[in-house]
Amino acid sequence: MRDVAIIGAGITKFGERWESGLRELMAEAGLMALQDANVESKEIEMVYGGTMAPGRFIGQEHVAALLADQLGFRNVPAVRIENACASGGSALRQGYIAVASGIHNIVVVGGVEKMTDVNASEATTALGGAGDQEWELSQGITFPGLYALMARRHMIEYGTTEEQMASVAVKNHENAYRNKYAQFHKMLKLDEVMRSKRVADPLKVLDCSPISDGAAAVILAPLDIAKKYNDTPIHIVGSGQASDSLSLAERDSLTELKATQIAGKRAFEQAKLRPSDINVAEVHDCFTIAEILAMEDLGFYEKGKAAKAIADGETKLNSKLSVNTSGGLKGCGHPVGATGVKQAVELTWQLRGEAKDRQVNGAEVGLAHNVGGSGATSVVHIFKRSN
Amino acid sequence: MRDVAIIGAGITKFGERWESGLRELMAEAGLMALQDANVESKEIEMVYGGTMAPGRFIGQEHVAALLADQLGFRNVPAVRIENACASGGSALRQGYIAVASGIHNIVVVGGVEKMTDVNASEATTALGGAGDQEWELSQGITFPGLYALMARRHMIEYGTTEEQMASVAVKNHENAYRNKYAQFHKMLKLDEVMRSKRVADPLKVLDCSPISDGAAAVILAPLDIAKKYNDTPIHIVGSGQASDSLSLAERDSLTELKATQIAGKRAFEQAKLRPSDINVAEVHDCFTIAEILAMEDLGFYEKGKAAKAIADGETKLNSKLSVNTSGGLKGCGHPVGATGVKQAVELTWQLRGEAKDRQVNGAEVGLAHNVGGSGATSVVHIFKRSN
Repeated sequence: MRDVAIIGAGITKFGERWESGLRELMAEAGLMALQDANVESKEIEMVYGGTMAPGRFIGQEHVAALLADQLGFRNVPAVRIENACASGGSALRQGYIAVASGIHNIVVVGGVEKMTDVNASEATTALGGAGDQEWELSQGITFPGLYALMARRHMIEYGTTEEQMASVAVKNHENAYRNKYAQFHKMLKLDEVMRSKRVADPLKVLDCSPISDGAAAVILAPLDIAKKYNDTPIHIVGSGQASDSLSLAERDSLTELKATQIAGKRAFEQAKLRPSDINVAEVHDCFTIAEILAMEDLGFYEKGKAAKAIADGETKLNSKLSVNTSGGLKGCGHPVGATGVKQAVELTWQLRGEAKDRQVNGAEVGLAHNVGGSGATSVVHIFKRSN
Repeated sequence: MRDVAIIGAGITKFGERWESGLRELMAEAGLMALQDANVESKEIEMVYGGTMAPGRFIGQEHVAALLADQLGFRNVPAVRIENACASGGSALRQGYIAVASGIHNIVVVGGVEKMTDVNASEATTALGGAGDQEWELSQGITFPGLYALMARRHMIEYGTTEEQMASVAVKNHENAYRNKYAQFHKMLKLDEVMRSKRVADPLKVLDCSPISDGAAAVILAPLDIAKKYNDTPIHIVGSGQASDSLSLAERDSLTELKATQIAGKRAFEQAKLRPSDINVAEVHDCFTIAEILAMEDLGFYEKGKAAKAIADGETKLNSKLSVNTSGGLKGCGHPVGATGVKQAVELTWQLRGEAKDRQVNGAEVGLAHNVGGSGATSVVHIFKRSN
């Protein structure tokens, strides 16, 4: 297997992109990544497109071939990867495997979702497809409801408080404020989060990531030729993925995501690194409780210790470990298929030292963590600056 | 890159499977493949699941993780692959890449679609997502309509007749009659096809593949350890894939699928074989005209010559080249995500000499050809018996 690097990154502004359809969003992010990588269209050998539910959001399946066509390489093989909200991270892993295998050299990994063409109720129903339709969603529970169950159990077992959860939102909006591609440029006060409308007790609307349009893309190449394209290739030193039951009821615990624990362990083992080696991380904060679970399941904190640490500011920009510098799903927005790829884009910029106002000083090693549904898929990648 | 083989194959009966949901279909085919391969659950390292539109058919996305769970390996990484009706073939290719790369040893590739939980009109709309939603489907054209345009143009350019197209349906129903897993066990007379109701002129209902439920699965392993599991591993000697524009209007020709031409060329080059080396082929006959296009685009016949050859019986069972011995999409049924995997299952049986009443005498080399939409994706695999 060959070493693989990211040689280009592109993204759109996330948010309510009324003026752009799915294909325009894909083209915008894809062309930015191609230009950044300094590759020509004819060099592209394969396209991976991560997207969750374009059939339900806009009536369009078969999106990867559309992406290839929009980017100007019509006959290049393309596949869509879907793993609910982990579609982007899963697409990145498949692109990584394709380049590592030697079967393809230059590969485009795109992620996209166009969610605002349907109303919020339809969007919530579509997103419900990430959980167990037959045993969960058809009974009436929504995604905020599933995470609310996890949050409540975490409060009972570890004394986690609503204020601690709210502090995740405050931190991530603070980071988003410094990211021009983020959906929200509005700082939040803890009190605002606490007073916001309850969606699924104990989660309030400001504990939840928004419905968003957006796209992101990275270009992968074998590490040994990456320098031809880019002075600072970002080496993918670890890639781990794992699954779990779709339905919460079949799991042993509500306060941990086993898929994240396994995926993280695999990525760290491959990278020969430990959590303490990570300088900057993008973790999956679809709800504030999810960031707390992630920080524990990835081994950054012992079970039950992350909430207080986050509330104490340990994961703010340029503190002990800078987490969700992009603003995370909460502040940057969550076009579901794009999120996992956006994490790789943010970490590429951070490790190159190009993250401007939100640059983590001396960032050399980054981690991306992308979750599908309520944890039935988890994908973890570890990146290292290689110049 | 390592050589890769199929070591197990499983399938469900295709048809209107009112008694079974998506998860039961997946489990049925998957367990049959696992037993056939004689592998233990703990040996499985990765799951690829091909399915087109489960979100629209049954409200369920995130199907690969569900498949892994249903088959008893809950924490194994899983990804769903979607490329419209080429989802199954695309999943097979990704599984092939994963094993070839050395990153995984034993991999499950499943394909499934549960289409009959919605009515025919909703199913037609969902399938429309395989074409260009913005430039084709939203204008009112359906999938039979797109293929009717290709059929009419083929008639004008090459003198192809409706009777010749109908002969494809007659042949494939004859093969399906000998396949206990096929949706239809009804022989057709040419006259019956000709008199059937027009769906999109010149295509009649009996020129069209049906709406179906069903699943199929194969187990892949590195060739060098395949004999440990199976006396007759089926070696994947060629794998090619290509894309094209989603919309017909953007193509140079309506009478050829460029994606099939490129994918076929790549697979033949890798296999170091020519069309004349193939003994048995499963090609994508979503409509009768599609089988004619496939036979030409894959190089079995010159452009304009396939229709007469098929009508003359050259591709019947145990004639010059046996095509669609399973019954094809037309006779065996077309649960879209399952079709590409079913082709691999049928060829595994043929090359092992286990195809019973429909066994092609002395079959040693087989070809599978799976198309997405109206040709925006095409995937070709070539298989060889390796004992």
